[in-house]
Amino acid sequence: MATLESRHLLDLLGIEWPIVQAPMAGISTPQMAAAVANAGGLGSIGVGAMTAGAAAEAVREFRERSQGPLNINVFCHRPAAKDGEREAAWLEALRPQFESVGADVPVSLREIYRSFVADEAMFATLLAARPRVVSFHFGLPPAAWIRAFRATGTVLLATATNLAEATASVNAGVQVIVAQGYEAGGHRGIFDPDGPDERLGTATLTRLLARRLHVPVIAAGGIMDGQGVSAALRLGAGAAQLGTAFVGTEESAADDGYRTALFSEEANHTVMTRVISGRPARCLANRFTAFGATVTRHVPSYPIAYDAAKSLHAAAKTVGERGYGAQWAGQGAPLARRLSAAALVAALVAELNAP
Amino acid sequence: MATLESRHLLDLLGIEWPIVQAPMAGISTPQMAAAVANAGGLGSIGVGAMTAGAAAEAVREFRERSQGPLNINVFCHRPAAKDGEREAAWLEALRPQFESVGADVPVSLREIYRSFVADEAMFATLLAARPRVVSFHFGLPPAAWIRAFRATGTVLLATATNLAEATASVNAGVQVIVAQGYEAGGHRGIFDPDGPDERLGTATLTRLLARRLHVPVIAAGGIMDGQGVSAALRLGAGAAQLGTAFVGTEESAADDGYRTALFSEEANHTVMTRVISGRPARCLANRFTAFGATVTRHVPSYPIAYDAAKSLHAAAKTVGERGYGAQWAGQGAPLARRLSAAALVAALVAELNAP
Repeated sequence: MATLESRHLLDLLGIEWPIVQAPMAGISTPQMAAAVANAGGLGSIGVGAMTAGAAAEAVREFRERSQGPLNINVFCHRPAAKDGEREAAWLEALRPQFESVGADVPVSLREIYRSFVADEAMFATLLAARPRVVSFHFGLPPAAWIRAFRATGTVLLATATNLAEATASVNAGVQVIVAQGYEAGGHRGIFDPDGPDERLGTATLTRLLARRLHVPVIAAGGIMDGQGVSAALRLGAGAAQLGTAFVGTEESAADDGYRTALFSEEANHTVMTRVISGRPARCLANRFTAFGATVTRHVPSYPIAYDAAKSLHAAAKTVGERGYGAQWAGQGAPLARRLSAAALVAALVAELNAP
Repeated sequence: MATLESRHLLDLLGIEWPIVQAPMAGISTPQMAAAVANAGGLGSIGVGAMTAGAAAEAVREFRERSQGPLNINVFCHRPAAKDGEREAAWLEALRPQFESVGADVPVSLREIYRSFVADEAMFATLLAARPRVVSFHFGLPPAAWIRAFRATGTVLLATATNLAEATASVNAGVQVIVAQGYEAGGHRGIFDPDGPDERLGTATLTRLLARRLHVPVIAAGGIMDGQGVSAALRLGAGAAQLGTAFVGTEESAADDGYRTALFSEEANHTVMTRVISGRPARCLANRFTAFGATVTRHVPSYPIAYDAAKSLHAAAKTVGERGYGAQWAGQGAPLARRLSAAALVAALVAELNAP
């Protein structure tokens, strides 16, 4: 069954191997996505932190390097609710952190990235670019946009962290579900970050969705090698999505501090926190997450909190402190490898095909 | 590799299939363990809530029914620290819950079960009973006891929730590690319930331990069918341990309220809570876990808190309220099946061997 499911999904996505490079906004690059696509996997670019113009340029850069399939990932959160009082209080809470790296606290915070659901220009750009795949994270876009993508033949994916989100996505016309377990690094795709979170593990969620849904499932979270991909297929997934495995590749945009942490003992400890961006995301344990563990007040909405985090990280870097980075990583981080993206895909395929 | 690992472990445990029925103190029965052993798996009895005499009787009942291998599981927590002030405050916090079911609050709480590490009689009983396997949960017993078990040929297992616990266990002479993921139902085996918890998922933890250790690993947490067992083997485990899958079997000691909840929509929601027993444990969401979510004070030590929980559940049952039970279940609960233990093992084997 797994084999049939897998074949169907590979055909749909236009890939040779059941391997998806996770979109990772800010970390993935057109070079990474092209290397993965050229190696027979699905390359992805996360445009959650880009303008429509930058996204168009990223697609162009990908296409200069690959004729393969491309997955463009967008963030579909409810647009941020400005709350001057909360943001001022948050900046005040962050003051000692800024001071510890010799920096001034910003005077105010902005919604630094626009949600896809409120970004008509991005929608028009992606519709025109006709990537093989568009994937949704944090929720779903307007129904008319889903219909428009489907009409052009674009395959639609959505992240789900539970059965209810998966069912809502399928009912809205999404064709493939990315089952994101609690182990996963980076932003948790949960639709409502203020609602209850069942924290379902990758294997359990994958098996549950494979049993309950009638569409293909891609397993995501904590998968670092071909054995992990193989296990996901045994659970009924059609493919596996790997992010942290690609963070340390040559093509990654991860900065030196992030790479250093990933390939150190620090990889053994990750924390789900919302203090960095305003939404729950799994990060290597660092100074920022340690501060986060002491926080009881409400963090501003995503991505308003992220504005403060980026200022703090930038200031800290100037004094050689790398502990304030958004060093997203999943629980599998200790198994990360230093390879090129192409070599990583080749290794995954070899491990997957080993008896 | 997985196949070789698996074969080695099966020989060590004396079983035909890579399937371990989780010990589940209070829920497993000699009948259940014997049915599993007779079907080619490893049957287990958790004696954490038994006296030495009751454990000896359970072994006898098992052996009346099976010549197969038996796993006796013991709880190796630090013996409870009595704290009259904390316990009185806790009973006060529980007063509205008791009153809601028309019962009086107990006047005091007791350490209702003795830790194995302080139970010489249990040690002597198990040493004399010579079960094929003894498994440790919550920590490790004295080094001399480990040596004594090893000298009689008993195979020793220990639960680990992270690499540090696994390494400590192997260094102490434990031969097989049960990798318990955050998805698992019932008591989390974490050695120090007051320390940090990485909450590693089953698949990620299993893969990490299979890569890092030189002893066999048994995957536990969220596994409900043969496809899940197969996935665990692909991750390098030698076998899989299933608990929740056996809670609803005919041989289980689960009460009617527990079974009703397990086979209802309630199975979709589980909560890791320490309010029931004093240690983190995953339970079907019910009135008790909902109360737990509102608790900020310190819960008494395990198993002192459990004394209150058992009184509350007993009182609630007399008025038809089943929402105060210790209805332990893992995240895979929605996939539970109503079968006999033997039929469940047969189904698992068929699924495992399916292409």
